[in-house]
Amino acid sequence: MSDALDSLRRELAQISDLATAARVLEWDQLVMMPAGGAPARAENLAGLHRLAHELFVRDEIGALLDDLAPLQADLDPESDDACLIEVTRRDWEKATRVPAALTADLSKLSSEGMEAWARAREEDDYESFRPWLDRTLELKLRYIDCFPATGEPYDVLLDDFERGMRTHEVRTVFDRLKPALRELLAAAPDDEAEPFLDGPYPREAQHELSLAVARAFGAQEMHFRLDPTVHPFCLSFATQDVRLTTRYAEDDLHGNSVFSTMHEVGHGLYEHGGDPALDRTPLATGCSSALHESQSRLWENVIGRSLPFWRWFYPRFQAGFPEALRDVPLERFHRAINRTQPSLIRVDADETTYGLHIILRFELEQELLSGSLTTADLPEAWNAKLEELLGIRPPSDRLGCLQDVHWAGGMFGYFPTYQLGNVLSVQIWERLQAELPDAYEQVERGEFEAIHEWLRERLYRHGRRFTPAETIERVADGPIDPEPYLRYLREKNASLAPA
Amino acid sequence: MSDALDSLRRELAQISDLATAARVLEWDQLVMMPAGGAPARAENLAGLHRLAHELFVRDEIGALLDDLAPLQADLDPESDDACLIEVTRRDWEKATRVPAALTADLSKLSSEGMEAWARAREEDDYESFRPWLDRTLELKLRYIDCFPATGEPYDVLLDDFERGMRTHEVRTVFDRLKPALRELLAAAPDDEAEPFLDGPYPREAQHELSLAVARAFGAQEMHFRLDPTVHPFCLSFATQDVRLTTRYAEDDLHGNSVFSTMHEVGHGLYEHGGDPALDRTPLATGCSSALHESQSRLWENVIGRSLPFWRWFYPRFQAGFPEALRDVPLERFHRAINRTQPSLIRVDADETTYGLHIILRFELEQELLSGSLTTADLPEAWNAKLEELLGIRPPSDRLGCLQDVHWAGGMFGYFPTYQLGNVLSVQIWERLQAELPDAYEQVERGEFEAIHEWLRERLYRHGRRFTPAETIERVADGPIDPEPYLRYLREKNASLAPA
Repeated sequence: MSDALDSLRRELAQISDLATAARVLEWDQLVMMPAGGAPARAENLAGLHRLAHELFVRDEIGALLDDLAPLQADLDPESDDACLIEVTRRDWEKATRVPAALTADLSKLSSEGMEAWARAREEDDYESFRPWLDRTLELKLRYIDCFPATGEPYDVLLDDFERGMRTHEVRTVFDRLKPALRELLAAAPDDEAEPFLDGPYPREAQHELSLAVARAFGAQEMHFRLDPTVHPFCLSFATQDVRLTTRYAEDDLHGNSVFSTMHEVGHGLYEHGGDPALDRTPLATGCSSALHESQSRLWENVIGRSLPFWRWFYPRFQAGFPEALRDVPLERFHRAINRTQPSLIRVDADETTYGLHIILRFELEQELLSGSLTTADLPEAWNAKLEELLGIRPPSDRLGCLQDVHWAGGMFGYFPTYQLGNVLSVQIWERLQAELPDAYEQVERGEFEAIHEWLRERLYRHGRRFTPAETIERVADGPIDPEPYLRYLREKNASLAPA
Repeated sequence: MSDALDSLRRELAQISDLATAARVLEWDQLVMMPAGGAPARAENLAGLHRLAHELFVRDEIGALLDDLAPLQADLDPESDDACLIEVTRRDWEKATRVPAALTADLSKLSSEGMEAWARAREEDDYESFRPWLDRTLELKLRYIDCFPATGEPYDVLLDDFERGMRTHEVRTVFDRLKPALRELLAAAPDDEAEPFLDGPYPREAQHELSLAVARAFGAQEMHFRLDPTVHPFCLSFATQDVRLTTRYAEDDLHGNSVFSTMHEVGHGLYEHGGDPALDRTPLATGCSSALHESQSRLWENVIGRSLPFWRWFYPRFQAGFPEALRDVPLERFHRAINRTQPSLIRVDADETTYGLHIILRFELEQELLSGSLTTADLPEAWNAKLEELLGIRPPSDRLGCLQDVHWAGGMFGYFPTYQLGNVLSVQIWERLQAELPDAYEQVERGEFEAIHEWLRERLYRHGRRFTPAETIERVADGPIDPEPYLRYLREKNASLAPA
């Protein structure tokens, strides 16, 4: 019995080594690699992913899992071994349902689709991208057909990012958010744009301040790097080796690296806080996309755009950018970084309108999959829906339906997790505050250890041991609930109203 | 038939992807990784190496090679396919002769031995390292026993770095060099140390000048990176993606990054110049350790310490370090960077004494393997031999037999390739000059394209297609020969004599 478990652990460690190597190669490609290395790197990465997949879907893994069923039945279901067997079985059953040829086609189409999208976006030429989108939808429907029907085809795609979650659960949350967020937007004051938003914010100072915040939040030099890149992201190669990336806008406060760094630190602390006992197993990463995003948003927004945080950090920030901020008082600065305002681009959206951008995508991708919307009609449908939700219309597809890479990369079903992350971030923060009532006072003193430790204990250390629903239950004492988020936005927006 | 070749190529590409991934992880570890990542990285790397080895030594690979024997017999032996089958068969036969347990033991001992060595060197405590050295020798003898006897056990170890070369061939070269180098050393003038050797050489200027030389030699930004590290090295991940590393001594001209960069650029241009048709095969790298070193030394020494090179580069170099070099004329500078002088540390040795350091190691490692020297007597034997060859005695083991990592890492048989590389560098340069008679005039004009192209055409593009002996024949029109090197040293040393 224990031989089978040893064998399974050995097999999974080997596959994990390949997955880790692939992540190092991906990080290197986006942060370090000379441009000329791209074609060889694409082949190397495809080779590593293919091999990891082939090793995982072997019948031997299935046989080991069968051998382990009696042991699992005897184990405490919350033990590491039971969780490992359970999660591996589920991953294996999903992976083996998809024919190798379809997996390979999806992977190839994803790379090619992203290239086609980048060109199309560059040239604002949606039509040149449309054949890729059609082909992606076609393969995604074939992928969905590999799984038992649940009533909603979208369930299969959502499950890849939120194990066990159903589309109707998302819809319930979004149906509550949609009118409420629109109301909040309608009530937002029509502020003038602040001139200090345009900088200058010298890059050097941004980098130093970003590092200072990262270190204060708990991303220590021993375990974290911070490097510049084009589109910021976080990758971890081990709990003890986490790579953060950022970018530096010198003429736009919203693009200041301090904000994107706080976001990536949130992802990074989650990965860093995993139980080392889970290393080199499929449990050694965050539980789901929404839970991961809850942590980036908690550190970036709930803490990082709060008045207590800036009471602590603003003097230093102001000193770093004297030309832009010398005469700007704290409250005016805080109001500017929290301004609610319709905008065309999701990643630039404020905390209130962000959810509306996501709801737009969630609705459109379901229509595309059901066939009730064709790709020919997508640009107009996008523009009409943005106008309906935010009252503005994109002047081009580049600023409309071509703005995100996700669909090009085949990531249908991913968008809702961003907004679920926002919702969860506040829900978790409410629980944290119930147990650490002075949390915001600690933030105001620049103290983050107790907050970090609470999150580590309640969330980070569990990795992928439990399902998202079980994990949410553990960290938030209840199922996902949009009310705390709406309360938070109402209170925040009200507190920002002019005196 | 062609199916078998396709299968073999596919298998080799997969193994090559793993080897490439391991190199990226190694580079990252030495250049980028936060210190905390070390334990996980060691496990990841061991996992990748183990998997690559297991995939290669499978019976299926042997069966494919058998199937391909008739095809190989029909092919032009210089064709890519014939070379691929031939080199793969030889690698496979070597790899499969060694039991998996011994391979694993050697690999584990290598990591542990290097750690034990680093501690022992730090504390100047040879005795603490001696058990590791004994164990390494024991496993190396078991490794040798896996192969047919050739009369000299050392042949087996040498073959790992110089395929097909025999120990007696090295001995013939070194027997010619030993007295000749000692004569050259005895004849060297006893210069006073120049005060400008001590700097200051600010790091920033070193970095800029190193990049400038690298670009001039042909290491373009599109395909090469240059980063700081502790012990400089070069790794390539593809012909189009080469990573150079260097270090910056601010108070020692000999440790100026420009020299180590020229050395690593030589290695890098060799890798970069490989025929892209060899990508993702075992032929896609330099032919042997000695040939690789011939290129680092050609660019670092034959070009990079020549008077023509400094006629071109000295004005820029001098301008970069005005405090140290403002009043130093070119000839005095050139004489200082070429001074012949006994020294304790191999990596700091000049072109004349370097070979004596290697001969010492070559002789001692044969005695250790034959048992005529015990590890207990190694420090004294080292010190006595250094005194015999160079007339100086190390005051400590740290500056004596503990200075190099090679034996700790199990790399017995590697040292001679350094000096063979020096010998070959001049032999190749003589051939190059026969066909490009104005080569040094081009160097003096800062023109390196024709030199680079000649080397690419005659050496770099062949990768591992041919044996070292065949490759040397192609690039140098004859077997390895120490006379050009001795001629070069005699002429250079004479030209440096005070007027």
